[in-house]
Amino acid sequence: MLDLLIELGNLKRLPRTGWLLRGVPNPESVAEHSYRVALITLFLADELKAKGVEIDVEKALKIALLHDVGESRITDIPKTAQYYLDKGKAEKKAVMELLLSSPEPKEYFKLWREYEEESSLEGKLVKFADRLEMLIQAYEYEKAGFRNLDEFWGTVKKLRESEFYSYFRELVEGLVEMREKLHRG
Amino acid sequence: MLDLLIELGNLKRLPRTGWLLRGVPNPESVAEHSYRVALITLFLADELKAKGVEIDVEKALKIALLHDVGESRITDIPKTAQYYLDKGKAEKKAVMELLLSSPEPKEYFKLWREYEEESSLEGKLVKFADRLEMLIQAYEYEKAGFRNLDEFWGTVKKLRESEFYSYFRELVEGLVEMREKLHRG
Amino acid sequence: MLDLLIELGNLKRLPRTGWLLRGVPNPESVAEHSYRVALITLFLADELKAKGVEIDVEKALKIALLHDVGESRITDIPKTAQYYLDKGKAEKKAVMELLLSSPEPKEYFKLWREYEEESSLEGKLVKFADRLEMLIQAYEYEKAGFRNLDEFWGTVKKLRESEFYSYFRELVEGLVEMREKLHRG
Amino acid sequence: MLDLLIELGNLKRLPRTGWLLRGVPNPESVAEHSYRVALITLFLADELKAKGVEIDVEKALKIALLHDVGESRITDIPKTAQYYLDKGKAEKKAVMELLLSSPEPKEYFKLWREYEEESSLEGKLVKFADRLEMLIQAYEYEKAGFRNLDEFWGTVKKLRESEFYSYFRELVEGLVEMREKLHRG
Amino acid sequence: MLDLLIELGNLKRLPRTGWLLRGVPNPESVAEHSYRVALITLFLADELKAKGVEIDVEKALKIALLHDVGESRITDIPKTAQYYLDKGKAEKKAVMELLLSSPEPKEYFKLWREYEEESSLEGKLVKFADRLEMLIQAYEYEKAGFRNLDEFWGTVKKLRESEFYSYFRELVEGLVEMREKLHRG
Amino acid sequence: MLDLLIELGNLKRLPRTGWLLRGVPNPESVAEHSYRVALITLFLADELKAKGVEIDVEKALKIALLHDVGESRITDIPKTAQYYLDKGKAEKKAVMELLLSSPEPKEYFKLWREYEEESSLEGKLVKFADRLEMLIQAYEYEKAGFRNLDEFWGTVKKLRESEFYSYFRELVEGLVEMREKLHRG
Repeated sequence: MLDLLIELGNLKRLPRTGWLLRGVPNPESVAEHSYRVALITLFLADELKAKGVEIDVEKALKIALLHDVGESRITDIPKTAQYYLDKGKAEKKAVMELLLSSPEPKEYFKLWREYEEESSLEGKLVKFADRLEMLIQAYEYEKAGFRNLDEFWGTVKKLRESEFYSYFRELVEGLVEMREKLHRG
Repeated sequence: MLDLLIELGNLKRLPRTGWLLRGVPNPESVAEHSYRVALITLFLADELKAKGVEIDVEKALKIALLHDVGESRITDIPKTAQYYLDKGKAEKKAVMELLLSSPEPKEYFKLWREYEEESSLEGKLVKFADRLEMLIQAYEYEKAGFRNLDEFWGTVKKLRESEFYSYFRELVEGLVEMREKLHRG
Repeated sequence: MLDLLIELGNLKRLPRTGWLLRGVPNPESVAEHSYRVALITLFLADELKAKGVEIDVEKALKIALLHDVGESRITDIPKTAQYYLDKGKAEKKAVMELLLSSPEPKEYFKLWREYEEESSLEGKLVKFADRLEMLIQAYEYEKAGFRNLDEFWGTVKKLRESEFYSYFRELVEGLVEMREKLHRG
Repeated sequence: MLDLLIELGNLKRLPRTGWLLRGVPNPESVAEHSYRVALITLFLADELKAKGVEIDVEKALKIALLHDVGESRITDIPKTAQYYLDKGKAEKKAVMELLLSSPEPKEYFKLWREYEEESSLEGKLVKFADRLEMLIQAYEYEKAGFRNLDEFWGTVKKLRESEFYSYFRELVEGLVEMREKLHRG
Repeated sequence: MLDLLIELGNLKRLPRTGWLLRGVPNPESVAEHSYRVALITLFLADELKAKGVEIDVEKALKIALLHDVGESRITDIPKTAQYYLDKGKAEKKAVMELLLSSPEPKEYFKLWREYEEESSLEGKLVKFADRLEMLIQAYEYEKAGFRNLDEFWGTVKKLRESEFYSYFRELVEGLVEMREKLHRG
Repeated sequence: MLDLLIELGNLKRLPRTGWLLRGVPNPESVAEHSYRVALITLFLADELKAKGVEIDVEKALKIALLHDVGESRITDIPKTAQYYLDKGKAEKKAVMELLLSSPEPKEYFKLWREYEEESSLEGKLVKFADRLEMLIQAYEYEKAGFRNLDEFWGTVKKLRESEFYSYFRELVEGLVEMREKLHRG
């Protein structure tokens, strides 16, 4: 397991290429992103529960922590590259093999697939959290003065179409509004 | 909650001062550290469970994710400073107020205290994971060529004294051995 | 004294957290700030003298060089944190102990207090220089494209209320005007 | 063509992941690597010519400049990832499409393939230069104090097996010797 | 020659001071700039050839690769400094001596002079490419959010006065237009 | 004077090229160096005074703060470059013109010359402090794991030959000893 923990340290060193390629110097790492995704997942899951939704918080947290571990082997391959190679397939295999030396290879891989395929409530929630996290980060970079991040905001559409939107409408629209305010000056 | 999520973004920007002050350029952030602490917690908790220990994995994960959130307000104040100010007290108050806009202020704060005071099995496990993570990072920096990190290794003693040591002896001693091998060249 | 000089090297490694937390990547260090504070102090003190004000330039320079040395032990704890801990008290003790191995512990500490308490003309001048330096840096960051620094400009008020304002009105208002011009585009 | 030139700017922003994953902070970019590969190609090609080898210097230089352009779309995918995805195939397609808006799509793509497949003298020379460049950089990092780069030196074997080795034996062995000297201390 | 190749590695470490002094954090290196200058030279030279201009592509590429090698010894001395020292003379001598250990000292130095003095068609083309590269980079920085780069755009005038302008009008004006669009918001 | 203060901000952005060229990533800035030179000057001057040496502390501090201001215009041109250009002459002219908008152009320039020519006790002391500061920094980098800094230590000889050596023998030899201990392991 020690080797696995060391290999997962790669996630601290790997920049999120979406920001990197748009000119943000020294952007966040995959680990930094994953950390806030897990925090968001925690908050949203607990809020859903409080609103009567039956959701497995433990499972959701596990998925959040594991959702990007494959990038420790295949790196954060950007959108532009995914046209040329099957990232999904590569990541799937990498995750499977990487987790072989984890305590629960089968369970963890199953959880990862639920995220990838959005095939469980918890998997869908982490996908929602993943997108929300990216937009909050985009907002922070824009607030700091960076530009060239417009296309990320297309993701708002996906948040609005999500089944969780009705629960977190205020959160999503609050962010959009803050961003608009930023650009109105 | 949006404001809280943005404030927690500070953890991505805040360097871990232990490395910074010893000359590691652009060291890891608090968020990067917290992410691997949570991963380690997940693996160790699941392993403990498999070995028949009754541990609440969900609770452990929540504690891991929350254990350093106070630093988004008070920063990673280094050991040298803690001689001059009561970090524990400041962090406690900061965590309490910070979490007020979270979905479960009381529960989260209670969990944070279990970590701080090592007053529950799960709190103790995250403390163990926190120390182990630091040592793995120290090992990685030393492997990359950095020196001046000797004093961190005093923490091995605390891992050996922990009640979890018997379960994870191989992990701890494996790390110590890899480090010694590194320095024998 | 060698140990002291090495410890003061921390000031080169410690980022000014005000900029860091607002998203400026790799912001200036405490040492960089202190250097320009000392330069500004030199220029202002000499100008005051030329205008007939009785000011002790040597003393002012010493204060400028020493005004942030405590941060080598307690780091640049940001405003948000100071609500939770008594930075002033901590810094005072840290400065006192740190300077014990300096050539003139008592004198230097007395000088530091004159800054902290603004209890002498020279101490007040360095406080003025400290604020002015911060605003010039804010202007430089804004000129480079960074945003999110509005709240720093509230400090202009303090400069205007200072007893030195009448001497350096042109300097202060010149900066404010340049900034406004920047934002008018 | 303007869009192409801007897209090729990605090569300045993309880190060489081999160094990144081994803990070198802010390692060289793909563009920096490519630049020295082109310089080495120039020097080696001219030396070969002087030694009576018939080599097309212009062609060699073009290959050197183009050999990594595909990474502007697919990034510097590390060895560990190539086990999971067909980098060669992806890069081939990316290069082909990327160069469509260049002045000579067909010729440039043909040249790139000569490198990839080592199917011409010039293609082989650039491959030789590419490996040599990497080793010189490894040497520089090791000289600066970085460790953990041992496995790169396995590439020396490939240089020794190359048909160009007899011409540049002194260069290759000189580098190996300097490295050994470094480690003898 | 090994020593020369190592010394040319300095170009990877040396920042382009024009950006650095205007507040771009971690700006491009001289090597990164040189790489794209060489790529631009390749594309423009091939396009000129296709349009019936007699141009020696090999020669142009050699000039592009060598045009800034002197900076490995004298660094990228900024405009402000050139008022105080004769950069041209220093660079000339540095290039001459640096290239002594290259395979073709005389030829390479002659080529470098053709760039410096714009005394051949190929030398002029690299100068054109050098300016164009700088403007594309300025555009990229502005697109990412950086400001304070206005004065670089005065160079457009030089591109318009060049004998190559009629061939690459679209390229130059396309860039200018994209920039204007950027600032119209 | 505002323009001058902004221009002196360049010293925060300019890396000390000695470290940069030897592979230290993101090395200290000129401002960071100057700050510790001024601190060292303060301590040494006060110690000399305590030992009965007649030294003008104010003057020494002014020299320390001003000794590298010329680099805001001509940058930290490294030793390798100084063989090709007259840095002394350039710096002299730059300092003179730069200080024209300072409160005391003549006095400051006279002080700068005393440093440059080591023509006064205070000028000599700052030169001593400048060298000592560089060696302390070299020691810190070596302690952190960086290598390739051997040649800097030749400067110890100059410290030993200085008239101040007898007063600060312990400081100088203490540093040398600490370094040797570091390398003995």
